[in-house]
Amino acid sequence: MTVTAPRGFRAAGVTAGLKASGKPDLALVVNDGPSKAAAAVFTSNRVAAAPVHWSRQVVSDGRVDAVVLNSGGANACTGPAGFQNTHSTAEKVAKVLDISATDVFVCSTGLIGEQLPMDKILPGVEAAAAALSADGGPEAATAIMTTDSVPKAALFIGTDADGEEFAIGGIAKGAGMLAPGLATMLVVLTTDAAVDAELLDVVLRDATRVTFDRADSDGCMSTNDTVVLLSSGASGAVPSAEAFGAGLTQVCAELARKLIADAEGASHDIAIRTFNAASEADAETVSRSVARSNLFKAAIFGKDPNWGRVLSAVGTTDAVFEPDQLNVAMNGVQICRNGSIGDDRGLVDLEPREVLVEIDLQAGDAEATIWTNDLTHDYVHENSAYSS
Amino acid sequence: MTVTAPRGFRAAGVTAGLKASGKPDLALVVNDGPSKAAAAVFTSNRVAAAPVHWSRQVVSDGRVDAVVLNSGGANACTGPAGFQNTHSTAEKVAKVLDISATDVFVCSTGLIGEQLPMDKILPGVEAAAAALSADGGPEAATAIMTTDSVPKAALFIGTDADGEEFAIGGIAKGAGMLAPGLATMLVVLTTDAAVDAELLDVVLRDATRVTFDRADSDGCMSTNDTVVLLSSGASGAVPSAEAFGAGLTQVCAELARKLIADAEGASHDIAIRTFNAASEADAETVSRSVARSNLFKAAIFGKDPNWGRVLSAVGTTDAVFEPDQLNVAMNGVQICRNGSIGDDRGLVDLEPREVLVEIDLQAGDAEATIWTNDLTHDYVHENSAYSS
Repeated sequence: MTVTAPRGFRAAGVTAGLKASGKPDLALVVNDGPSKAAAAVFTSNRVAAAPVHWSRQVVSDGRVDAVVLNSGGANACTGPAGFQNTHSTAEKVAKVLDISATDVFVCSTGLIGEQLPMDKILPGVEAAAAALSADGGPEAATAIMTTDSVPKAALFIGTDADGEEFAIGGIAKGAGMLAPGLATMLVVLTTDAAVDAELLDVVLRDATRVTFDRADSDGCMSTNDTVVLLSSGASGAVPSAEAFGAGLTQVCAELARKLIADAEGASHDIAIRTFNAASEADAETVSRSVARSNLFKAAIFGKDPNWGRVLSAVGTTDAVFEPDQLNVAMNGVQICRNGSIGDDRGLVDLEPREVLVEIDLQAGDAEATIWTNDLTHDYVHENSAYSS
Repeated sequence: MTVTAPRGFRAAGVTAGLKASGKPDLALVVNDGPSKAAAAVFTSNRVAAAPVHWSRQVVSDGRVDAVVLNSGGANACTGPAGFQNTHSTAEKVAKVLDISATDVFVCSTGLIGEQLPMDKILPGVEAAAAALSADGGPEAATAIMTTDSVPKAALFIGTDADGEEFAIGGIAKGAGMLAPGLATMLVVLTTDAAVDAELLDVVLRDATRVTFDRADSDGCMSTNDTVVLLSSGASGAVPSAEAFGAGLTQVCAELARKLIADAEGASHDIAIRTFNAASEADAETVSRSVARSNLFKAAIFGKDPNWGRVLSAVGTTDAVFEPDQLNVAMNGVQICRNGSIGDDRGLVDLEPREVLVEIDLQAGDAEATIWTNDLTHDYVHENSAYSS
């Protein structure tokens, strides 16, 4: 159920020696075609890593032949030397695969502000190329892990109007930037459906907008976040934009939930659903403001259904609502009604890992959900260790 | 050095019984004139507490005769009954002091979403009125404490153009919203200078903009934050707007620093100074984005001079800068130069409690500083305890 489940792809994951632990740290995903169509979305952080700058250019013509990813170093804030290292990595991949460097997409994840050890990266690329196989997806999923506790993958199988089967597979790493060293979210998606680059771009943006963009672990934005989607067309299936988009959104949603569920130090997975909003943007703004309240997140860690902290976060937004018409439910208990005291908060059970907060703005019929985590001792611990 | 240092004021702090601990929890500050001029600033949270709604009306005519403050309950999100309780408290103060209820300013702090125990508040008002004295300021400073570990006060002494001496005194409570139950910042400032309400309003807004507004402990905004300034005119001094404003800003800055220094659970006081910015707004935006990065704050707790987390926060703003021209120094060591690796980060000493982060945008000549704290285990602990 990874990037090699769709036909037309090979992958590998090897140990290049970037991680002190000796665990796999370099992955390669190759599209054998016949199509090489691709699309990608990147972090909107203006301080973007060298591989982000490089890969933006690579994908700009809608073609990607291979993706090389390393953990153990973000190659961010590394100046011209860092960009040169990304370039050299792409050149090396191009050479061993006999393709053009301008079709090699590069991703990096790890500590910001350190140069990559190219004496380990370049031999690693050779080893990865030699290890490429049509069932190498799981090894690639493992090699991109940083503080992830488990590799993350997802798969969707669909059919086009003619009954031809196609697959969309994905691997992901990261913990919504919850992990040490500002762990980046990297996602590689593959499909054997025949979809041109233009449509890939449209459906990828639509899918990420309502999935990865709504997983907000700690409000921090990485310098390296990247989601790339490759189409081999090897199935011959030509699904409609709707059918393909629905499948892609399902894969992205599953990966996003797995990222949040594996967030460093979290003890609760929290869905914050705002409904009866005047607009979807309002609903997202309100949910995100609550997701970013440290006071709210610490309360959930303490199993305290502190709806006052929800309302105080809602009150900082410019969404359409009247303060005396806000309703808040937590795990099904209506603890705030019309901006004031509702049902007994003692009825709220916060023992389960899953928490659902529902905010009723009474201002319209739009809704949106943001997924986040609680703020725990382990979060502070994981993110305060020296030289992480 | 409190609110009773300036002439023309009496104050008291008593135990009304709102706090389970039996500590003082009700304060009264009375302006005996001859002037009763006043101004105030309030939280911009749209979910504002009942006393905020009440006191906004009270001060709208520029006159306040007395301020009553309770700890042990925020009276926020308490509906019409909550507003009635604020009204009753003001009526009680008016009755015992023989003044108008519409000149009684009310402040509350404590847990959101609980009704105040009026059977304790009303006798508490009587006791406070009976205890009023010209040296009662320290008792008032103590009675407004919630999770504060020490009472906070400040004093400025100046002279007008004729050599007449005037004083500005202040008391404050709160920990920049770092404390359990969303501890509010409440500040009462008094002066015996003769300043009319209009000028009080102008200088108070100017002073709070560059002091309290730039103390950002955890990015959360309270439902109750209030700063009120009373002038008795009892000194006869008539300082210029500049002289009075400078003194007021000094008092506010001292109180703001004391709030940050006493923030719950903090182990580092962090000043984030952004300079060479295209505008003061840009500088403030950049400093605040870093102050609100949990990853950065956890790194400082871990004594890790992680400048990558500074840059990644800066990169989320729309301030004018080029990513490859950013410089960052931490406690005097230039660890990031032109967006890339600078001096050895091992040279940065983060053992001291005071941390200075300096961000050079190389985009102009404006600057601003935001004061914040690190993110610690104690923060999580303090804010996750049940029913806090």
